[in-house]
Amino acid sequence: MMSLLVDHIGELVTNDPSVGEGALGVVRDAALVVEDGRVVWVGPSASVDRGTDEVLDAAGAAVVPGFVESHSHLVFAGDRAAEFAARMAGESYAAGGIRTTLAATRAASDGELGANLVRLAAEYRRQGTTTLEVKSGYGQTVTDESRSVQLAARLADEATLLAAHVVPPEYEGRADDYVRLVVEEMIPAGAPHARWVDVFCERGAFDADQSRAVLSAGRAAGLGVRVHANQLTAGDGVRLGVELGAASVDHCVHLTDADVEALAGSSTVATLLPGADFSTRGPWPDARRLLDAGVTVALGADCNPGTSYTTSMPFIVALAVRELCMTPAEALWSATAGGARALRRDDVGHLGVGARADLAVLDAPSSLHLAYRPGVPLVRDVLKDGRRG
Amino acid sequence: MMSLLVDHIGELVTNDPSVGEGALGVVRDAALVVEDGRVVWVGPSASVDRGTDEVLDAAGAAVVPGFVESHSHLVFAGDRAAEFAARMAGESYAAGGIRTTLAATRAASDGELGANLVRLAAEYRRQGTTTLEVKSGYGQTVTDESRSVQLAARLADEATLLAAHVVPPEYEGRADDYVRLVVEEMIPAGAPHARWVDVFCERGAFDADQSRAVLSAGRAAGLGVRVHANQLTAGDGVRLGVELGAASVDHCVHLTDADVEALAGSSTVATLLPGADFSTRGPWPDARRLLDAGVTVALGADCNPGTSYTTSMPFIVALAVRELCMTPAEALWSATAGGARALRRDDVGHLGVGARADLAVLDAPSSLHLAYRPGVPLVRDVLKDGRRG
Repeated sequence: MMSLLVDHIGELVTNDPSVGEGALGVVRDAALVVEDGRVVWVGPSASVDRGTDEVLDAAGAAVVPGFVESHSHLVFAGDRAAEFAARMAGESYAAGGIRTTLAATRAASDGELGANLVRLAAEYRRQGTTTLEVKSGYGQTVTDESRSVQLAARLADEATLLAAHVVPPEYEGRADDYVRLVVEEMIPAGAPHARWVDVFCERGAFDADQSRAVLSAGRAAGLGVRVHANQLTAGDGVRLGVELGAASVDHCVHLTDADVEALAGSSTVATLLPGADFSTRGPWPDARRLLDAGVTVALGADCNPGTSYTTSMPFIVALAVRELCMTPAEALWSATAGGARALRRDDVGHLGVGARADLAVLDAPSSLHLAYRPGVPLVRDVLKDGRRG
Repeated sequence: MMSLLVDHIGELVTNDPSVGEGALGVVRDAALVVEDGRVVWVGPSASVDRGTDEVLDAAGAAVVPGFVESHSHLVFAGDRAAEFAARMAGESYAAGGIRTTLAATRAASDGELGANLVRLAAEYRRQGTTTLEVKSGYGQTVTDESRSVQLAARLADEATLLAAHVVPPEYEGRADDYVRLVVEEMIPAGAPHARWVDVFCERGAFDADQSRAVLSAGRAAGLGVRVHANQLTAGDGVRLGVELGAASVDHCVHLTDADVEALAGSSTVATLLPGADFSTRGPWPDARRLLDAGVTVALGADCNPGTSYTTSMPFIVALAVRELCMTPAEALWSATAGGARALRRDDVGHLGVGARADLAVLDAPSSLHLAYRPGVPLVRDVLKDGRRG
């Protein structure tokens, strides 16, 4: 049984209020002991038993739970840098868009798609993310959705079937026919490899009835429910998600009072993705309204080549503080424990006893620096299951 | 004579329109040859002479000129993370502020101040900055300003005497007396070590007459002029800077038409510092108004522990595109060639023949990715004077 001591932690964020101060469960001058990939002891450095096999000396640095990214789209090929530049210049860029990625993804080999996913997952990891959900959604044929979700399952922690991402060009004007294909063929083919089903419920994508059909079929096939909801308009996504017991409804930029009430009375997490709002120059979601209503809020980076090509959860924390008016503590909680709630995981997102030893050592004395030092790569070391790399 | 070939550059940004396409002087599938720290050849990879001593294979990556940071405050001790968190929570935080840093800096040894400067300069460098200006301004005694500017001169590329940063507590209500001390003692003591004199011309800091006295004395002592101007209010700083032939007026958030006209008719650069606007939740400067009027715009990170504790020029480029509505090309130019203009340097900020071989190799096929991939550490390799590290 391998054991590791992480010692001389200036500020340890556990997200476990029974272990330390406040909602973040902060312990100062702390130590943490890992056995077989799990946290077995947390407390003051002065009273730790130093008989472990290995020692990682944090030398006064802050240690936080590894970030839990509950929303990414990493199975794709190509990039859309020129489209981004045109959008930033205010040009309405009708051509291309998601179809560019669809064509590139379909044309790519499994090896190419896997290598791109691995590259981006490694980027996430270097910046402190230790749990990663990945969606399909750029295949949109039975074969391409199935291989996409299999790649996600093999190379990431959580796999989500997002066959109903947009209506693909072959089905233009025939969304119901595409939904039938998703329900009758893609879900049966993809469900054995996925944990979650997702749908983009939005004007121009799938309406409430179509979204319900997809999510219900996914649920019947044993998948948990997540929804791309209320990103561009105050549509039906949030309430549909709550009704179907979704683990998370994601984006939540345009919410009615009824949406907020529905969320507050549910176990559904509102996952905010400010990287997408940053890179599309869209409005920011109202995190304070959700928090004040008692809704559980998660933060994700939403890495995808169209609207949010970032893998930096520290950047998302900084944006959440600046633009969503979350406190640094709320933002850090939402990017760690919040993401875990959004994935219905209790083994990650915190560093209480029994948790996976997934953590980031910062080049900073306090986790406040994640927001205080925006854009600076502050993650010095990352452990997943107690191991580096 | 050591020579180095940087080969297989997917996209080389030279900022030299005589060498490549557009304002950025882009050469695709390029190579660049360095001798004794200077660029001696730029052109297509297919036609380069491969007889160099060393080769750096960029493997299709983009290469850009090293960033030129013309505005930083790195001579300080301590941090102000708690003040940042309180400000983000909307609390008016009367205590502390710059005086916290003043006290910590005065109490620190030269060794401590130097080590902190070196740490932050290394952070800048890892993210692609190869020319760095550093200001004094947290000493505010004759001894402390003198040692601050000597540290800046020894450890950075350009040193600026900012003795007139704020009115220090010992001179509260006696700003004219402090200005007299700056003019009669601090400038004579600091000028031999500095290249530039700077002043914070702002309501609550120094008014136009006081600023003029400081800048004129600095100029008479052989220093070039820079001004912290129009950050919080539409004051006199910009026009005073133009009148005195300042190399740069910095911040420029609140400008009148007369300010813009004065800049457009001058050789003074407007240096925008959106990191400060980000971390104080202040309004953004209107970069488009300046660019459209023909003003030369530079971008800086303004690293300091109070209002902008970032060293990431790529983050500044991303903010400039998102929030200042600069194009990715304009933002990159302003963070490289613009910074060089703000420091009146023609040897940096570009990669034409004769330039210093200061460059960053990106983990990306195009420099667009600096804005397209916000928060992601995209700098793979950095050369200064043709050398790593």
